Amino acid sequence: MTAHDVARRRFRRQAFREDLDAFYVSALPNIRYLTGFTGSAGHLLVEPDRTTLFVDGRYETQASDQASGIDVSVSKSDPLQALLNDVRKRKLYRIGVERNRLSLESYERLRAVRKKIRPLDGIVEELRAIKSGDEIDRIRRSEALNSEVFEAVVGRIRGTWTEERLACELEYEMRRRGAEGAAFPSIVASGSHGARPHAMPRPVKLKRNALVVVDHGAILDGYASDMTRMIALGLPSSEQLSMVDAVREAQDAAIKTVRSGVACSTVDRAARSALTKRGLDRYFVHSTGHGLGLEIHELPRIGSQVRTRLKTGMTITIEPGVYIEGLGGVRIEDVVVVGADGCESLTPTSRELRIL
Amino acid sequence: MTAHDVARRRFRRQAFREDLDAFYVSALPNIRYLTGFTGSAGHLLVEPDRTTLFVDGRYETQASDQASGIDVSVSKSDPLQALLNDVRKRKLYRIGVERNRLSLESYERLRAVRKKIRPLDGIVEELRAIKSGDEIDRIRRSEALNSEVFEAVVGRIRGTWTEERLACELEYEMRRRGAEGAAFPSIVASGSHGARPHAMPRPVKLKRNALVVVDHGAILDGYASDMTRMIALGLPSSEQLSMVDAVREAQDAAIKTVRSGVACSTVDRAARSALTKRGLDRYFVHSTGHGLGLEIHELPRIGSQVRTRLKTGMTITIEPGVYIEGLGGVRIEDVVVVGADGCESLTPTSRELRIL
Repeated sequence: MTAHDVARRRFRRQAFREDLDAFYVSALPNIRYLTGFTGSAGHLLVEPDRTTLFVDGRYETQASDQASGIDVSVSKSDPLQALLNDVRKRKLYRIGVERNRLSLESYERLRAVRKKIRPLDGIVEELRAIKSGDEIDRIRRSEALNSEVFEAVVGRIRGTWTEERLACELEYEMRRRGAEGAAFPSIVASGSHGARPHAMPRPVKLKRNALVVVDHGAILDGYASDMTRMIALGLPSSEQLSMVDAVREAQDAAIKTVRSGVACSTVDRAARSALTKRGLDRYFVHSTGHGLGLEIHELPRIGSQVRTRLKTGMTITIEPGVYIEGLGGVRIEDVVVVGADGCESLTPTSRELRIL
Repeated sequence: MTAHDVARRRFRRQAFREDLDAFYVSALPNIRYLTGFTGSAGHLLVEPDRTTLFVDGRYETQASDQASGIDVSVSKSDPLQALLNDVRKRKLYRIGVERNRLSLESYERLRAVRKKIRPLDGIVEELRAIKSGDEIDRIRRSEALNSEVFEAVVGRIRGTWTEERLACELEYEMRRRGAEGAAFPSIVASGSHGARPHAMPRPVKLKRNALVVVDHGAILDGYASDMTRMIALGLPSSEQLSMVDAVREAQDAAIKTVRSGVACSTVDRAARSALTKRGLDRYFVHSTGHGLGLEIHELPRIGSQVRTRLKTGMTITIEPGVYIEGLGGVRIEDVVVVGADGCESLTPTSRELRIL
């Protein structure tokens, strides 16, 4: 039994608690999770005793190779139409769909064929939150590659480099080392620009004697990595150095709380409380972390209002940050895997501020 | 009046032909086209006499900077909720939405507030098909950069390079030269792998004495480029060389037909007929081209069934190809801008097979 067979069995157990004849899976990462198919277009119909992947002619060979053990239907141009035809032919009436992943257009096409469409929330996403041993291995390897990339590039930074150049070199190194590409646009933000949590790299030289936020991740074997480290070209001010210490403490405090059974909000609160002691909590303007896997943002979110409890096998980022207008930003981010008695970090890189 | 003001005026003229109080624009490239806002999350509400961009806190500064001349509403966490609140407060009842760009989830949230939701097809997309002078300039510069990238990388290919390595170097050069990144995952397909039109680069050395398809594009200043060229490490077979000649002829034949007023299907047929003379038309398994701009695939599609007539200012690719199992693939692709009496190529690179 492959990992995808297991995933489909678990999916059916959840999905067919509802009174459904079939479930139409439209989100590509979910289709990949349930079948192994990695193409950029396709539709999946899961019935209690049968699974069919609908693709267009471009993916004929790939679909049969990757999605073993299920039926593959190949259409010249409109695979969704083929799915609708099957829905009619097989007399499937009550169809579950992915509320947050289906386009209005596809929904309308389905509604034109069947009245009993049942939008459901995140069934596959909730299964995906808990990783198998193989998935954890892949994330570990992705995280290891991403750390090697960081070391290699930081080792050859020059004072003439811009933020864009550093981002560009990071993404080049990812691919040179076998990654499919970047998991998200790399963030390099120096000086006061760092005060924007989602700062995009600029064609501006790395500021000297200031903090630089470097946040990047790769996709390796389909799985994302994510890491943020702080660097500086020359010594930053003591105020900036103490921001780094504070965020380190906040991250330590959060990581210490992570284990199966703990609420996500508890982890978030630990990071926030540590910053409160330093009077910095009001500068921590985002949540503490998020799951990652086939996508860079997965369940659970580690936020102050999230009651979900951590479970063994969840892989999450822990990434508190402090952003002060004028002074700049600090964020430190590691990926950990949740265990019964604590957690294991998958990010080997030292968390020390790297002063170059 | 900015380009975005002009775009909104044209949009209103189309959208409010329908009996609507407001139009909710959900697709980010469409929001960018209508406002200049480049953030990765946002919602736009266009009323006959007012336009409001709804963003979350991360984009407060950016939205005000980029989207000048319209209202900006900043919400802590849920900007769509703010939009829905405004819909209620301003007594807007009949709301147009983008059928092919709206998620079922957002549609349901809107339906919970207002019953008269009117899904409409591609209004902004049809406006975007015809480029302004400024947009054509940007595509020209993107295409020029992409061509320079090709020359620079082809000039240093080594026999030890894999397909992946060549793709990686192309994307690195794009960014080094100021591009935001690749417009799509670059295709490098050598030998028999080239017979798959959407072949992804493999960790396999570039085959000697065989054809290599190199298809890549950049994003510069928001606008895409797209080009395919053929290279070979050592002389390919005469059969392969004659495939290249045939595709060149097909491309020439198609380009000769391009001018305002001509149906897209006519351009497609010209390419197909040229290949028929060589007995190769059955190996041409995709359409002849597509529009490009803020996105890599825009209207119009240049296909055999597409009755749409070309208009001055459309920018389209012309990219016939021939794919023969075992022998490999050939595709040659240029971007042209449609004029009243013909077209102008925006792709400066020579179309000759490059034998290295």
